[in-house]
Formats: sequence, C-alpha cells, structure tokens
Amino acid sequence: MSTGNGRLAAAGAGIILRLLRESGAATIAELMDRSGLSRSAVSHRLEVLLERDLVTNGEGSSTGGRPPSLFEFNSKAGVVLVGGLGATHSRIAVMDLSGAVIVERAFDLDISDGPEAVLGWVEDQFGQLLRTAKSKSEDVRGIGIGIPAPVEAASGKPVSPPIMPGWDGYAIPERLGRKWAVPVLVDNDVNVMALGEQRAHYPDIADLLFVKVGTGIGCGIVAAGQVLRGADGSAGDIGHVPIAQAAGIPCSCGNAGCLEAVASGSAMAQRLRAEGLETQNARDVVRLVRAGDVRAIALVRESGRLIGEALASAVNLFNPRVIVVGGDIAQADQHLLPGIKEFIYQRSLALSTQHLRIVRSRLNDRAEIAGAATMVIDHILLPEVVDRVILA
Amino acid sequence: MSTGNGRLAAAGAGIILRLLRESGAATIAELMDRSGLSRSAVSHRLEVLLERDLVTNGEGSSTGGRPPSLFEFNSKAGVVLVGGLGATHSRIAVMDLSGAVIVERAFDLDISDGPEAVLGWVEDQFGQLLRTAKSKSEDVRGIGIGIPAPVEAASGKPVSPPIMPGWDGYAIPERLGRKWAVPVLVDNDVNVMALGEQRAHYPDIADLLFVKVGTGIGCGIVAAGQVLRGADGSAGDIGHVPIAQAAGIPCSCGNAGCLEAVASGSAMAQRLRAEGLETQNARDVVRLVRAGDVRAIALVRESGRLIGEALASAVNLFNPRVIVVGGDIAQADQHLLPGIKEFIYQRSLALSTQHLRIVRSRLNDRAEIAGAATMVIDHILLPEVVDRVILA
Repeated sequence: MSTGNGRLAAAGAGIILRLLRESGAATIAELMDRSGLSRSAVSHRLEVLLERDLVTNGEGSSTGGRPPSLFEFNSKAGVVLVGGLGATHSRIAVMDLSGAVIVERAFDLDISDGPEAVLGWVEDQFGQLLRTAKSKSEDVRGIGIGIPAPVEAASGKPVSPPIMPGWDGYAIPERLGRKWAVPVLVDNDVNVMALGEQRAHYPDIADLLFVKVGTGIGCGIVAAGQVLRGADGSAGDIGHVPIAQAAGIPCSCGNAGCLEAVASGSAMAQRLRAEGLETQNARDVVRLVRAGDVRAIALVRESGRLIGEALASAVNLFNPRVIVVGGDIAQADQHLLPGIKEFIYQRSLALSTQHLRIVRSRLNDRAEIAGAATMVIDHILLPEVVDRVILA
Repeated sequence: MSTGNGRLAAAGAGIILRLLRESGAATIAELMDRSGLSRSAVSHRLEVLLERDLVTNGEGSSTGGRPPSLFEFNSKAGVVLVGGLGATHSRIAVMDLSGAVIVERAFDLDISDGPEAVLGWVEDQFGQLLRTAKSKSEDVRGIGIGIPAPVEAASGKPVSPPIMPGWDGYAIPERLGRKWAVPVLVDNDVNVMALGEQRAHYPDIADLLFVKVGTGIGCGIVAAGQVLRGADGSAGDIGHVPIAQAAGIPCSCGNAGCLEAVASGSAMAQRLRAEGLETQNARDVVRLVRAGDVRAIALVRESGRLIGEALASAVNLFNPRVIVVGGDIAQADQHLLPGIKEFIYQRSLALSTQHLRIVRSRLNDRAEIAGAATMVIDHILLPEVVDRVILA
C-alpha cells in the first residue's frame, strides 16, 4: 500500500473532502488527526482536490512563526441544477455546492403536458438560468428534481403517478442526462421538502415528519437522518389513511373515510363552492381566510383536527421529534396548527409527545428546491462518488 | 502511509473480516480485488485476524499447481449471550458468531421483580449455559437483550416502561457488563423480533413490519434495512393507534378507541371471561380456538379485522414489502390473518399492496433471541468495532 497508488489516493480524497465539508477549514495536522492518515497521504489527497478546484488553500492564523496552510471546501467549484415540479406551478434554480441559490425562477407549468414537453421546457429554462448565473454547462455537477408522484429511488422513475398522465415509468434521469452528463436524482416532492427543512433548520434532529397540506395531503419522512421511501417509493401516504372523523365520506381513490377526502385544500375549496363561494383551489381558501371569512376559517380549523387524527397514528408509529407543516394551507397556520396539536397531544402516547414540536415550515415555497439541492449535493459529494465521478 | 503502521493495519482488518463474512471463503487475490488493497496490506490484515483466531486458513481448489490459501471467517471464534425477556416468560441462549444456537433455555420469570433480581438471575443462567456449552467467560464477545419496553438506543436504558416497574432508566448494559466486559446491546422486544425475522427469512427485503399480537399489540419496523426506533425509542407503537371500529372503547392508556383495547390477547381473554369462560391470557384464547370454541374463533377473526384497520394506515405510511405477524395469537393464524389481509388490501393504496406479502412468523418463539443475536453480532463485527474492541 503505497502513497503513490493513484486509485488509493483518489479513494482517500473523497474522505478528506467530507472532513472539510463537515468541519470547515482545516490544517494538514487537523486533517491527519481526523482521518488517521499520514502527512504524506493527506498532502497527496489535498493536491488531487486542489488540482480539481474542489479545495482552496489559504493561510491560517498562528501564535508565532509562519502560519499553517488552511484548506477549505470550495463550494464554488461547480453548480447544481434543481427543480421542484408541481401540478401547475414549478420552481427551478441554479445553486452552488453549498446549496446557496445563485439564480432561481418560479413559473406556471402544467405537468399533465407530459414528460417530453415539460422536461424539454425545464431543460431550456436551466440553460437560460445558467447563462444568467454566468455558469457554463461544464460547471454542472448534478441535477436534483422533486415531482408530485411516488418515485422508484434507484431509477428515478415515477411509479403510477395519479396526477402526472404520461409520466408512469418515464426515465427522467436519462432525459435530463442527455444534455448534462451528470448524476440526476429524482424523488417525491414531499420527501424532498422533508429533507430540505430538516437540513436547513433541524440538522440535529434525526426524526422529522413534513406534512404538506395543499391540493392534496402528503407526508415526507426523515427517520434516523434518512429519507424513508418504502418498498415502492410510496411511504408517507398519509392522505389516504382512514380516519374516524371522515367515516363514510367517499374519496377520489375509491375508498371512503380518507383524510384527503375531507381535509385537503381541494376538499375545502369544494365545500366552500357548495356554499356559493368562488374557491377553485387551496390558494383561494387561504385568500378567504386572510380576508377573515368565518366559514373558511372554521373549515381550516376543522381540517387541522382531521389532520391531527391521522398524525396521531403517525406519531405513534414514527416517534418523530419535529413535525413541520407546509403547503399552501400552512399559510393559514394560526388556524391550522391548533387542531393538529390538540389531537396529537391528546391521542398520542406521552412518551412520544413530551419532546415533540409541531411547527410551520420555515422554507415555505422554497422547501422543495432546497431539498432537491441537498439530495443531489449529498450524493455527488459522497466520498465514493467524489472518487469515482468528480475525480474521474 | 506504510504497511507497518499498526493502527492502519487494524483499521483494515475489520473491513477484511466484513468481506469474508459477506462473501464466504476467499483467496488473497479475491480479497485484494474486493478491497482495493495491495497484496502486502491484505496479508498483513489477515495475519492480525489469524492471530486472534477470527479467521481460519485452509486450502482452496486449483486448476494446476499448488492450490491457493483460502481464508474464512471463523464463527467459532467466540460466543454471544442473548436473551428475550418477557413479562412472565423469558428465553436465553449462547450462540456462536454466525448466530447458530449452541445451547438455549426457556423459563418463567416475572419481570416485575425488578432489574436487580431479574438480571442477577439472568446472569446466573448465562453462567450455567456457558458451562453447558463448554465455553469460557473469555469467549464471550457480546450480549444482546430484548425487553418489553421502549429503549433509549444509545444507552440501552428502558424509557418509561409501562409493564416493567422499577426498570425506568435502569442501566442494563452496565449491570450485565460487570461480569463480562463486552458490548451489551438492548432493544425493544418487537424491534428485535423484526430484525430476527428479516435477517433469517427475508434478507433481500429492506422494508418489513413485524406485528406481535400477544397480551398487548406492538410493531417492530425495519425500514431501508435498519430497525427504526424513533426519537424516543417508541416508534412502532401500533397498539395505541386510534381506529374507527374501536371508537369510544376505553384503553388502559387513558384514551379511548385504541387498537389494543379491543384486539389484544388480554382484551379477548377479558371478553371471553365476561361470557363465563376461563381465560386469563392470550394463550388461553389460543387454547380455546384450538379446541374449536366458536366464540373464541369469532373473536380472533374480529381481532384480525381490527388489526387490519390499524395496519392499513401503517402500510400507507411505511410501504413495507412484508408484514410478519407473530406473538401468541399468531398461533391461530388461520383465523387471524384473513381479517388483517381483507382490511389492508381493501384500505391501502394499490401501489403499496401490489407486492405486499402478509405472513405468519416463521421464527415464532425464537424470533426474539434470533434478533438479539443479529443485533449484537452485527455490532461487534462492524469493521470499526472489530478494530477498536476485538483487536484491542
């Protein structure tokens, strides 16, 4: 085992990069200490990373004599392209390798136009954003996409998506990989939001649920620090959990008594329409709540209690430390959260609720692109991926 | 970075041991290929493992010339002590490092006697079993224990155990570590059963639920190949999930409408007692079912439908590939499983049930000790633990 072995040096480089990402700037002595590697091994790996511009080299402070060299992860060494595709609205961005937004854009986009049209357009938009960001195609290190559907994790393909006609089994990574030959990661929108919120605001919390209350109701799960996807990518489907308060009420899924049938933005909009109000969707409901409409406020409060019933089961089953409530209806959080809290604290076990916090999303509309960035950056900076792909 | 560096050699030894456990016997050339290490590095690490008796050396086959040396993980290099402690019954065993039972014993034990009495007795029993197994105290490499309580994973302490008076916060690892200075791992009984069943019979399935239907009802979760414990060690508490079919019925937890209040072995025994039958516990219920008692059979069938309602939510939330049903009542599986299946296939999303299997436990009474062995063996043979503890 010699220092000059290129393969081993590359293998070590990814680990050194991880140490620098985790701990910030460090000297060679600190890196030797943390990695257990010899001075020559650390130096050789740093050379490899410096050559690829993944690490920068500056001067540290010293108590006397020449200050030691200080090495730091260079988050400007490339960019990632990220997107959060929704049924009717989407948001895309170019971010650096720390997940900081360089340029971002939100727009209306009908996902039912199908994958060729939508992804062709997304590709064009990414191209424009890259020019705005003054980045080149060669700077793109990875792509991360959230979509409103179950996703097969290994392939990044949508699986039986209920609201994405034409997308079932479509190979999104291959399509976007045509223009940029980089890793393309795709996951369910709520999974990605859960990851985004957890990393940005609860980095020390390993168990978190993110509940999105919008047109439908979905739940992203971070358990033991990892996004939980389930065997078919459909974990977290809280919208079709049967709840006692909805017994007998028919749902679009064919069953009755599902949470989504009574507590979602579209269910509320429909009930308000039946009362003669002009509500097409979740945003209209929020608009009415903001205008002080007592019927809309009462509905959102009731929705909170219904969601609380389904979440009481989820709390017993997952034992999360934090529940983050997001989605359009969360903009009426002062009316939505009390019912959720009431039911959970009443119905879940004391052991599971004693340290539980139930909060509104802080990332809001940006949760999905933040999470998509985390997903792809975490992947491309995995030590083994750094060694294999980035240093190739 | 030189081959002669003892710290680095030890670091590599654990990884070589893992390769041998995963793939069976291998030659130096195969180990070089799989580890990416040089011949001298592999040889040096093998020497370290051979010295500690963790690896054996035999002759492979050859197409000509001298056959190459074949190295193999030595599962007889030590033993683990494992126990599954229940409210009234317990089972303990001495196993080798492959998890094969050398000697095992089941006995009645009242866990409410408290930790000092119970663990003192368990310690004595372990001593006797070791003598029967003709093993010495120095051969003990680790201890794995399952208990009927939430457990703080890091410390192995029971957390607010409802049926273990005197055990709250008791440091089980410290107590058992007094006699054997080895890693002691403790986890919730159903978590351990889920792990045991998954490793023994579903090694290629990463997402599995184990539902124990006995005196109470609990659920162990394996998600993405790992036991899911939650933030307070209370994940999988399906017994207190509110279900519509039990609306209004009071539960011992203080709430009403919990699954356990209507579908557990003790709830069934109580209802049969109210009809004048001699049923103290879950086993009595099973005895009546076997004797063909129509009231007991009807109750178990109803219990299946109730459990199915709670599991329908769990299937939507976790999207498991396999649900294993164990515990005393599972001995009446021909009456219990139909109701469970009926409700889940009717109430859960098609995507989550299309590949789902719902089966009876195959390990039965041994699920807990098998899982406890897996838990402790997996831990002590982690590369970093091998390097730090076993090779110390």
